[in-house]
Amino acid sequence: MSAENSKVGLPISPDDIYKAAKRIGPYVHRTPVLTSARLNEIFGAELFFKCENFQHIGAFKARGAHNAVFALNDADASKGVVAHSSGNHAAALCLAAVNRGISAKIVMPHNSARVKIDAVKRLGGEINFCEPSISAREAGVEDIMARTGAALVHPYNDAHVIAGQGTTALEFLEECPDLDALLAPIGGGGLLSGCAIIAKALKENIFVCGVEPLHANDAFRSWKSGTMQTNTNAETIADGLRGQLGDMALDIFLEKIDHVIEVSEEDIVQAMRLVWSELKIVIEPSSAVPVASLLKQRACISGDKIGIVVSGGNVDLDALPW
Amino acid sequence: MSAENSKVGLPISPDDIYKAAKRIGPYVHRTPVLTSARLNEIFGAELFFKCENFQHIGAFKARGAHNAVFALNDADASKGVVAHSSGNHAAALCLAAVNRGISAKIVMPHNSARVKIDAVKRLGGEINFCEPSISAREAGVEDIMARTGAALVHPYNDAHVIAGQGTTALEFLEECPDLDALLAPIGGGGLLSGCAIIAKALKENIFVCGVEPLHANDAFRSWKSGTMQTNTNAETIADGLRGQLGDMALDIFLEKIDHVIEVSEEDIVQAMRLVWSELKIVIEPSSAVPVASLLKQRACISGDKIGIVVSGGNVDLDALPW
Repeated sequence: MSAENSKVGLPISPDDIYKAAKRIGPYVHRTPVLTSARLNEIFGAELFFKCENFQHIGAFKARGAHNAVFALNDADASKGVVAHSSGNHAAALCLAAVNRGISAKIVMPHNSARVKIDAVKRLGGEINFCEPSISAREAGVEDIMARTGAALVHPYNDAHVIAGQGTTALEFLEECPDLDALLAPIGGGGLLSGCAIIAKALKENIFVCGVEPLHANDAFRSWKSGTMQTNTNAETIADGLRGQLGDMALDIFLEKIDHVIEVSEEDIVQAMRLVWSELKIVIEPSSAVPVASLLKQRACISGDKIGIVVSGGNVDLDALPW
Repeated sequence: MSAENSKVGLPISPDDIYKAAKRIGPYVHRTPVLTSARLNEIFGAELFFKCENFQHIGAFKARGAHNAVFALNDADASKGVVAHSSGNHAAALCLAAVNRGISAKIVMPHNSARVKIDAVKRLGGEINFCEPSISAREAGVEDIMARTGAALVHPYNDAHVIAGQGTTALEFLEECPDLDALLAPIGGGGLLSGCAIIAKALKENIFVCGVEPLHANDAFRSWKSGTMQTNTNAETIADGLRGQLGDMALDIFLEKIDHVIEVSEEDIVQAMRLVWSELKIVIEPSSAVPVASLLKQRACISGDKIGIVVSGGNVDLDALPW
C-alpha cells in the first residue's frame, strides 16, 4: 500500500485499487451490470446497476475483506482476524479467512438480522455478541485482540478494506466507461470512498455522489461541515448504514465526492420495492438508498447515465417493509 | 417455417429456432446465466440459471411473441393481433405489437395477477376480461377474430411461438455447452418443447426434463399415457402453469423429452424462497417449479451440471407465499 495519493496526500491511491483487484481476483465475482427499460422510463435517466448483491456472501464487503486478509503476512495471518460488524462484513471476513485457511472472530450486535448471523455461523466464524453501540463493539474487539493477537480488520476504517471496496467502481467503469455519475450508499463510508478514488482517477469529471438515510445522516453533516459528526441514534430500515462514518472516509470524501443526498425512510421502501418489481433482483434496504435519491431529488444528480452500486441482497424475507 | 423436422416429422425444426433467434434478436435481451455456490452446496449439483425473469416484460414469453408477430406478412399484421393469456404472453404480445407498430387485443381471465393486468395496460393492449376457463378464453378470442380480422397468436400452440421460446435454450447452450441436463416448467408446453428441439439438436445426450405442479399435472399424465389428458381444476400457486398442455407440445414431448417430474405446492414455495434468498433474484412461482424438483427428486435428474430455465419474475409483492 503506497503511503500517499499522488495528488492530495490521501492514504489510498488508485494504484492500491488496481493491486487490490489483482489480489482478490481469484476470490470474488466480477458481478454483472443490469439495466431496465422500465426503470429508465420511470426515472427519466439511463440507469446502470452494478449488482454486488450477486457477490459472494451477498454483498460488496467480500472485496475489502479479501484484500485485507490476503495482504497480511504469514506470521500475522496465523493468529487469525477479528472484526465488529452488523453483518455483511462479518460474513465477508469469515469467507476470506476460510479462503486463506485462518480463523475469524466476529463481534456482532445482538440485534443483527438473523440471515446475517446465520451466514457467519455457516462460514465457521466465532461470534461474540455485544450491545448495539459502537463503544460496545470496539471494546469487544479490543478484548479479543489482547487475548489472541488476532489482526483487526475494521469494516471500513482500513486502507486495505477501502481499496478492496474500490474495485467495485473499477469494474463498473471498465464495463460502462460512459457513466456521467456514480451513486453509492454511505454507512461507514468505505464503499463510496474507495469507489470515489478510482472513479475520479479514471474519469476526472464523473459526478460522484453518496446517499444516506436522513435518519442516519452523519456523513452528510460531516461532509458539509468538514468535521466529523455523529448520529445519536440511527433508526433507519437501512440496517447496513447505521454505523458511524470513518475518519479515513471523511478525508477522502472532502477531496473526492461531489455531493451527498439524504433520503427519507418512505422513499427507501418505495425504491426497494421498485427495484424488486422492475429489475427482478432482491436487494437489501441499504441498496435501495441510492435509488431513493432519484425519486424526489433527481435534479441534484448531474448527468443522464447514472451508475448505481447495489451494495447487497441479504434481507429477511419474513420482515419485508410492505 | 419449414414443414417438418428432419428426423421425426415435427412441425418445428432446429433451423426454425435459428431463424427465430435472428428475427427476434433486435427486440429481446440475451439474458444472463447466474450461479450460486450456496445453492450448489444445498442441492449437491452444479446449477446454472438462465434468467428470463430479466427478459423484456419479465418473462421468456417476449421471445415467442416477437417471433410470431414479426413473421406475419404486412397485410395480416395491419389487422392487429389477438390472444388469450393469463398474463405474461399478453404483455409480451403487446410489446411485440408496439415494436411492429400494430394493435394487440387481449382476452384475460378476470382473476389474473394485478401486476400482469397493469403490464398489459401500460403497453397499450386492449383487454377483454373473461371467466377463468379455457372455453371462455377461446370464445373471447374467436369473437374478436371474427369482428376485426386480427391474427391469433396462441400463447403456446403455435409453431412460431414455440420456435421463439426455443431461443432460450439456444442461448443457454451457447453459453453453457457442458450442461448435462436442462429443466423447464410446463404450462402449455411451448417453452419446454422449443427448448427440447434445439437442445437435443445441439447435444444429443442432454437430459431434457419438464417439471410441473402435481396439482396441474396434465402434461405428466399426457406424456406418460401418450394421449392428451386435461386438468379438471388447476389449483396451484404457479399461476403461469395452470393452462392446458398444447397438442403441438405433446407431439414434441413424446419425441424429445426424457422425463416429467411433478412437484408439491410446499416444495414450490420452499424452492421459490431459496432462490430469492440465495440467488438474490425475484422469480414468480412458476419459475420455482423446476428448482422444486431438486428438493426431493434430485435422483430423477441425470447429470451434475443442471441448467434451469427461470421463466419469469412477475410476482405480486403483496401476496408472497410466506
